[in-house]
Amino acid sequence: MSRAIGILGGMGPAATVDLMGRIIAATPAQGDAGHLHLLVDSNPAVPDRNRAIAGEGPSPGPALAAMARGLEAQGAEMLAIACNSAHAWAGEIRAAASVPLVSMIDATVEAIRRDHPGARTIGLLAADACLGAGLYQGPLAQAGFEVLLSEDQPGFMALVYGVKGGETGAAARAGMAAQAEALAARGAELIVAACTEVPLLLGPEESPVPLVDSTAALVAKLVHLAAD
Amino acid sequence: MSRAIGILGGMGPAATVDLMGRIIAATPAQGDAGHLHLLVDSNPAVPDRNRAIAGEGPSPGPALAAMARGLEAQGAEMLAIACNSAHAWAGEIRAAASVPLVSMIDATVEAIRRDHPGARTIGLLAADACLGAGLYQGPLAQAGFEVLLSEDQPGFMALVYGVKGGETGAAARAGMAAQAEALAARGAELIVAACTEVPLLLGPEESPVPLVDSTAALVAKLVHLAAD
Repeated sequence: MSRAIGILGGMGPAATVDLMGRIIAATPAQGDAGHLHLLVDSNPAVPDRNRAIAGEGPSPGPALAAMARGLEAQGAEMLAIACNSAHAWAGEIRAAASVPLVSMIDATVEAIRRDHPGARTIGLLAADACLGAGLYQGPLAQAGFEVLLSEDQPGFMALVYGVKGGETGAAARAGMAAQAEALAARGAELIVAACTEVPLLLGPEESPVPLVDSTAALVAKLVHLAAD
Repeated sequence: MSRAIGILGGMGPAATVDLMGRIIAATPAQGDAGHLHLLVDSNPAVPDRNRAIAGEGPSPGPALAAMARGLEAQGAEMLAIACNSAHAWAGEIRAAASVPLVSMIDATVEAIRRDHPGARTIGLLAADACLGAGLYQGPLAQAGFEVLLSEDQPGFMALVYGVKGGETGAAARAGMAAQAEALAARGAELIVAACTEVPLLLGPEESPVPLVDSTAALVAKLVHLAAD
């Protein structure tokens, strides 16, 4: 019997649907019954993570904690967050729930170490809040990697907010590819899509160097854990 | 302030994600905050609707009623079901919840009457349970339409169950197009995709005559009602 996954979502909504679609695609199933039970709270009212880290807006912690409690009450046996930045409030989520939170950050760092042990220099595409909270830089430095960040972070954030407003066309895709290319040109041997909006604009085939996608890393871990 | 939509899903999982993605795409939003609050229970353990109507399996009614109660407890202010056939148990769902259930059947029949008032003959692509419960035939006959059903219903059901198992490739798409073409050849002026798996294989551009898609009709109604 598989275990129900509770997804804290809406950050943004399209990234939540992307995560769900990939869980479904990654699940070997002959029919409905072979799929995993997903309980999803796609909540657009979670306060902006980037503004919160910048000290310009309220903390999303209480909203995320309430969502975790609600999903657990509905039967979730493990939790996941469809947003890297929101992991800055993982402590509040873990304190609110008695079921485990499967960290997308941990899953992604594990995937990098497992699949790219020879890489030294990583280009990190992450939102302001994710960078401000140091969610990836610490674990990656500890694992011996050098981390390069975008030299056009405002441009990156404009693309991320664009996705949340439905901008996923050719211009947006070209913009995200340019972000990856700039990192590769500076020596990144690997691009880490450490924001769930990135894969909505950039696929592995559009990245000049191998792409490690945080959504894909989380999906693989969730499908493995939930199917146990 | 928009109202939270609770979605009874998992029938199948891909159709649930399709419904969510279309709600998001249909919502005018500049960022996360402009989107609708979606609470989703994508539950693969809902008993098979087709087997239940055929008297070959347990009723999905109790599972659907429990999902409705859970979604309402989590804050859903209206409910929707991402499956036409499951509307055969709408009575049990309505009895279990105190918030309204927005019927996909009603939304689709309304869309047909509004957008195609001149049509007389409708080709209905619907699953066994949906047909067995007469969910569409009654309202469409009452509205003065003649309804044509597939002459290869086993072939149609094989395509529907295929989607639930991930079969959405070229052969499956050609098979669903052939279903639509056969109905058009027999005089259907309109195809009604009255199963949420159909649009995962058949788009308006692949239908030989205008296509009314039950998912699209429900999305339009939900976005209108929830944004109020």
